[in-house]
Amino acid sequence: MLLPPVIEHLIAEFARFPGVGRRSAERMAFDLLSAPHQRVAALHAAIGQVEKSVSVCAECGYFAVDGACLICAQNRDRESLLVVERALDVTAIERAGGYRGLYHVLGGHLSPLKGISPSSLRIDALYQRLDAGTVHELILATSPSVEGDATALYISRNVERENLRITRLGRGVPMGASLEFSDAGTLRMALEGRRGMDSP
Amino acid sequence: MLLPPVIEHLIAEFARFPGVGRRSAERMAFDLLSAPHQRVAALHAAIGQVEKSVSVCAECGYFAVDGACLICAQNRDRESLLVVERALDVTAIERAGGYRGLYHVLGGHLSPLKGISPSSLRIDALYQRLDAGTVHELILATSPSVEGDATALYISRNVERENLRITRLGRGVPMGASLEFSDAGTLRMALEGRRGMDSP
Repeated sequence: MLLPPVIEHLIAEFARFPGVGRRSAERMAFDLLSAPHQRVAALHAAIGQVEKSVSVCAECGYFAVDGACLICAQNRDRESLLVVERALDVTAIERAGGYRGLYHVLGGHLSPLKGISPSSLRIDALYQRLDAGTVHELILATSPSVEGDATALYISRNVERENLRITRLGRGVPMGASLEFSDAGTLRMALEGRRGMDSP
Repeated sequence: MLLPPVIEHLIAEFARFPGVGRRSAERMAFDLLSAPHQRVAALHAAIGQVEKSVSVCAECGYFAVDGACLICAQNRDRESLLVVERALDVTAIERAGGYRGLYHVLGGHLSPLKGISPSSLRIDALYQRLDAGTVHELILATSPSVEGDATALYISRNVERENLRITRLGRGVPMGASLEFSDAGTLRMALEGRRGMDSP
């Protein structure tokens, strides 16, 4: 017995989520179908709401609700611009606190093997924002991986502008980590990036 | 910055799925929000379709589409009734093939600690089906766990009827498993359930 198309469609949509395979998608669909009817209605309504009111900010690439960007519409320091790969990274940095500037979401990292070239990312939009001349510090916070580093390097080589300082996130051992279980690359970075005991 | 209520609602609904924590639900929501608009629309439509057309069969507890049960409406052997805990189990058995009878989905297993008593499951509905007298074999296929076994035992003690054979699934080493990595309980079951080389 094959499942009816209406359930197959739902499973196929669930399987699009990252890390959700066919089996997990099936489990999700069956869980939803076995749940009280209100839960299906609530999920349906929540997705409908998001579909209707959430869009992507044309300026920074983060989310806008009813047309107002959750970040750009705030009163923030417009001289700092922090470049990340994904919207999720913005939420992580906001949650950590301490940064008051604006963001720029690229939408991924360069990956020639997967066909992701500069034109697939929001890099031109970044140049345009820098052309306005308001930004004085560009913080490249792409992911600490080979592709993330390559993306940061590519951008840093193409945005040389007067009065623009280009920085990247500090690298080293994360808070709470044990040196014993840190990988070699992280330890090398931490040694190279060592600081005086009295530096901030 | 907290996320806007519209996104928080979506995350809360995703987090209801089994095995999906707050972090995974957030990742799912952000993935959906970053996806092309068609994907949000497709998921919304798929859930709406399911909400509208899928219901639970009052007879067996499996799914019905537009009022017709996917199993009961088929031409099947009505003398065998196979009892499972969840709708997902029906799909697994149908996929395996070889069973042509009807099913009865309990909706879980007995668990006094979690407050799941016989009245929380579809056990009374099972008795009613048996009262009709059509069923001649009741196969108890609850999960191979302490709770599943207790549920099967409880049912078998309460359904004694004339002309009703009560059976349960065979237990033993699963196909393709290595004896080395089979747990003690499984090996004991396999030994107890040993059969002559010429038996089916």
